[in-house]
Amino acid sequence: MELDDHSTEMLPSNWGRWGIDDEIGTLNLITDDVRARAVAEARVGTSVSLAMPVDPASMMGGPFAPPTPSSPPVLQAMLYTGAPPMAMAEVLIMSPHHAGLTHLDAVVHVPVDGEIYPGRPLADAVDAGGVRHGSTAAFADGVVTRGVLLDLSPGSRLPSAHPVTGADFDAAERRIGVHVEPGDALVVRGGWSATRDMGEPMPGMTLDAIAWMHERDVAVYAGDIGDAHPPVDRQLPMPLHQVGLARLGMPLVDLADVDELSTVCDGLGRWTFLLTLAPLRLRGATGVPVNPLAIF
Amino acid sequence: MELDDHSTEMLPSNWGRWGIDDEIGTLNLITDDVRARAVAEARVGTSVSLAMPVDPASMMGGPFAPPTPSSPPVLQAMLYTGAPPMAMAEVLIMSPHHAGLTHLDAVVHVPVDGEIYPGRPLADAVDAGGVRHGSTAAFADGVVTRGVLLDLSPGSRLPSAHPVTGADFDAAERRIGVHVEPGDALVVRGGWSATRDMGEPMPGMTLDAIAWMHERDVAVYAGDIGDAHPPVDRQLPMPLHQVGLARLGMPLVDLADVDELSTVCDGLGRWTFLLTLAPLRLRGATGVPVNPLAIF
Amino acid sequence: MELDDHSTEMLPSNWGRWGIDDEIGTLNLITDDVRARAVAEARVGTSVSLAMPVDPASMMGGPFAPPTPSSPPVLQAMLYTGAPPMAMAEVLIMSPHHAGLTHLDAVVHVPVDGEIYPGRPLADAVDAGGVRHGSTAAFADGVVTRGVLLDLSPGSRLPSAHPVTGADFDAAERRIGVHVEPGDALVVRGGWSATRDMGEPMPGMTLDAIAWMHERDVAVYAGDIGDAHPPVDRQLPMPLHQVGLARLGMPLVDLADVDELSTVCDGLGRWTFLLTLAPLRLRGATGVPVNPLAIF
Amino acid sequence: MELDDHSTEMLPSNWGRWGIDDEIGTLNLITDDVRARAVAEARVGTSVSLAMPVDPASMMGGPFAPPTPSSPPVLQAMLYTGAPPMAMAEVLIMSPHHAGLTHLDAVVHVPVDGEIYPGRPLADAVDAGGVRHGSTAAFADGVVTRGVLLDLSPGSRLPSAHPVTGADFDAAERRIGVHVEPGDALVVRGGWSATRDMGEPMPGMTLDAIAWMHERDVAVYAGDIGDAHPPVDRQLPMPLHQVGLARLGMPLVDLADVDELSTVCDGLGRWTFLLTLAPLRLRGATGVPVNPLAIF
Repeated sequence: MELDDHSTEMLPSNWGRWGIDDEIGTLNLITDDVRARAVAEARVGTSVSLAMPVDPASMMGGPFAPPTPSSPPVLQAMLYTGAPPMAMAEVLIMSPHHAGLTHLDAVVHVPVDGEIYPGRPLADAVDAGGVRHGSTAAFADGVVTRGVLLDLSPGSRLPSAHPVTGADFDAAERRIGVHVEPGDALVVRGGWSATRDMGEPMPGMTLDAIAWMHERDVAVYAGDIGDAHPPVDRQLPMPLHQVGLARLGMPLVDLADVDELSTVCDGLGRWTFLLTLAPLRLRGATGVPVNPLAIF
Repeated sequence: MELDDHSTEMLPSNWGRWGIDDEIGTLNLITDDVRARAVAEARVGTSVSLAMPVDPASMMGGPFAPPTPSSPPVLQAMLYTGAPPMAMAEVLIMSPHHAGLTHLDAVVHVPVDGEIYPGRPLADAVDAGGVRHGSTAAFADGVVTRGVLLDLSPGSRLPSAHPVTGADFDAAERRIGVHVEPGDALVVRGGWSATRDMGEPMPGMTLDAIAWMHERDVAVYAGDIGDAHPPVDRQLPMPLHQVGLARLGMPLVDLADVDELSTVCDGLGRWTFLLTLAPLRLRGATGVPVNPLAIF
Repeated sequence: MELDDHSTEMLPSNWGRWGIDDEIGTLNLITDDVRARAVAEARVGTSVSLAMPVDPASMMGGPFAPPTPSSPPVLQAMLYTGAPPMAMAEVLIMSPHHAGLTHLDAVVHVPVDGEIYPGRPLADAVDAGGVRHGSTAAFADGVVTRGVLLDLSPGSRLPSAHPVTGADFDAAERRIGVHVEPGDALVVRGGWSATRDMGEPMPGMTLDAIAWMHERDVAVYAGDIGDAHPPVDRQLPMPLHQVGLARLGMPLVDLADVDELSTVCDGLGRWTFLLTLAPLRLRGATGVPVNPLAIF
Repeated sequence: MELDDHSTEMLPSNWGRWGIDDEIGTLNLITDDVRARAVAEARVGTSVSLAMPVDPASMMGGPFAPPTPSSPPVLQAMLYTGAPPMAMAEVLIMSPHHAGLTHLDAVVHVPVDGEIYPGRPLADAVDAGGVRHGSTAAFADGVVTRGVLLDLSPGSRLPSAHPVTGADFDAAERRIGVHVEPGDALVVRGGWSATRDMGEPMPGMTLDAIAWMHERDVAVYAGDIGDAHPPVDRQLPMPLHQVGLARLGMPLVDLADVDELSTVCDGLGRWTFLLTLAPLRLRGATGVPVNPLAIF
């Protein structure tokens, strides 16, 4: 990717902020105080999932095979364990970054100009055999922090192709009377989803929105919108991934579903909660499916 | 499986307790009160993972392939996304019930005499194309409850082949002054692990231990020990799976790692915590890898 | 499978004919004389494939993923081998018995009443870890024999649901003046195909047709038709598989495409040829994709 | 790859020889006359496989899983098809270019300086979704030609790290009194194999050997040796792949096993035969496992 009109020095960046060996990026911002603030939000125990449900597609072929969706996110093959069966089990095959799967991007997912966060050569971090730096190892212990839902279009959805800026976040904060603090998870509702609205020009983040996240020191981004399709700015087509993930080192929950969360927040009259991210404890991947839980 | 000496009527069972259509078993016991009790445990925000870390094995072959372990739990193939690469991504292949993977068993995992919980014919629940009843759909919203760590052998490990009974749990409760309540997650430390102690006769649950869980209405079991290998009682070789999972409908976290948890509990001087289970939101599988988080 | 009206003693069978340890069944019939007869058919070097072509479906997900067919027979993930790429490579995932794949069935593929050819307990032959008896190991050295094309409906296709009998074969032989000999591969054209005619009642073999093959000592069956869908005889729904494969031990090429072969035979005025089957030299599978070559 | 000391204009090449749309390279050399010459070699019907046998490794994990080799070429998961099982079947996962698998390289497998045979941009031929030019589609109809075994070290093996030149081929031809003709498959025995001799410096082809193949218009290469490990010439480390495959467009059978072939040739006193290559009829892959048959 080349950034002709944006000098790379001018882009928001955390490269070097926590040293050249850092792999967890903005998760460094989740201090003991942030954790204490987070668990203080958990008062009644109501919990909401921010993940899209997934039905695996059968890998079995043949005349009796069930129909499967085109390009399914998860494939399943039921296993023979003897006759009668000793237990029921399966093999699962998945593409973590699939558009049908709520997932958590590791910082290595997006290289810029042959480098990955925080300024290391891609070739040193990844080869055919796997990932050595910037992988999902960052999520091994889980992520526990305060989540704040900023609903950019309460009760409706953002206009098609809307370029989200910091002003949108400011307005959403004012509506609910909450201030996003360093170490928080920013949870965004735009009212769109990649699976439902496939083909329509989707709203998405501008560089200004990423600069806002950087100023506020957001630790994690989760949203039903992310980068715009098609891009708003052709010079910098995916700022959430190319700047937010790759330069800020801010892990992204791609393809979250926040509709139920929004309903629960409305009902309770509060838009902050304990957020937990605890994907499969897998080291060495570029992304991993995740079921974020908002606990009130 | 045939139970010659144990009349099936005498075995602890929840079949029918929540109706013939029930799929979530003892998760029904996690009421609003239980959830409120659970979040009251989260005071400082310290969190601990109960999952074994997993390094994926490369699927790449050839003379330059990295060595891989025999029978790895997760395989990874790094994907070509163009030259230069647009993004780093992979395909993952996994066996959820693998002995190298901390995972959550759905009630359909173990059939007894051609039936699955809560008394439905296996053939109606599972076919070559997948699972229709009793699957991981039960975990779609995540599990949030209070966890209680019962350390059966503080500072050491249980004797080899030790048959765990209700008396072991009673003694552990007395040591820490906690009572396991309906809806709690029972987290057990025996000081053993399938990966580390492979080949040695491992301690494990007796039918008496399962009866204790039933009497206490435990919602979820998680432990570094589970069913004994080799079996203690050849008539009922895997009571935790064949009675606890299949008859009580009590989901099991197999192959948890509770050593760090035990250290943190000792340090804090308390053995109760908020426990969250939020695996991939996958419906229709028999089990799924999980990273349980204990939050203090 | 239960055969209420057909006493199993009355069914054609080779169980025991070559001993209880035999794994290659009617391939035993391919003697040196048969091989010599086979290669005598190869005179000009024209060759024809009897396999359906297969386009792999991409395993890559995401918004830019190519559309894939439902339940594809072969999945492909292009591999990252560095930047710039050292080589182009992939991982392939396949279901050998898929209805979109021309494949060769090993005798273990179909058990009858808990036994497999030539009368061994299924449980001794197959477990969760793989196949120990009757597998594709039988094809490791390839199969070289004479092929004879019997076109049951020259220039057209068999009537829907037509029950094929030995009389159909006799008539086809008379039309071309060829006699199927012991050790020959019987190649059958019905003018139908599972992929093209999905949903229509397809013609297929009767028990009488299998008895004809047994009498003639056919070594291998290949056809664009096989067992009828839906079954002709509900008491014995898949005689080609349940008797031909399982009791005669006669390997089956399922889902062959013989249209081009038929055109070439017509053009040359002869219906016999050298047939080679040389699938991946894989031991321990129940079936394997194959590209049968007819060489004239 | 950069060729500092070898001007690319000086390298043997067929780029452009059969047009810019050609995908089959030296298979164009297999004319009707070549095919007729080939089948004339098949006189008695004896056949020999040139593939290494492969035992699939079980994908099943767990305490009862069979041990598997590190980085196996083929993985197998036995499928559940009901209880009792309707049929035995599996899913197979394979890496075609694996060092444990005899396979056939398509011309797209090796790009040179961002281009593939016959001079097309790599980016037009391959993307994340698959291969559009130069794939295994070239082998869809099978390959039928004359094979000639040149044994470079009869009764023993080549010295370690021996650089094979055209003179080695000339000497081998003289020993058996055969001349390799245009369109022939060159089958080479060096007495080494990647699986058996892993770690030892292996002999392999020099650029001079590739020039010899080009001069003779060899259609296909198959050998138990190929490119040397480690490279003989660091400026051009893999001439068989980088020149033979990529510039001549000559398909390669990698990792053939020719020991039994050599024994049969010795016994029969002739070193020419009908060679058939009929891998899975898969279009769009970069390579495919193959079981080459030599028929005498």
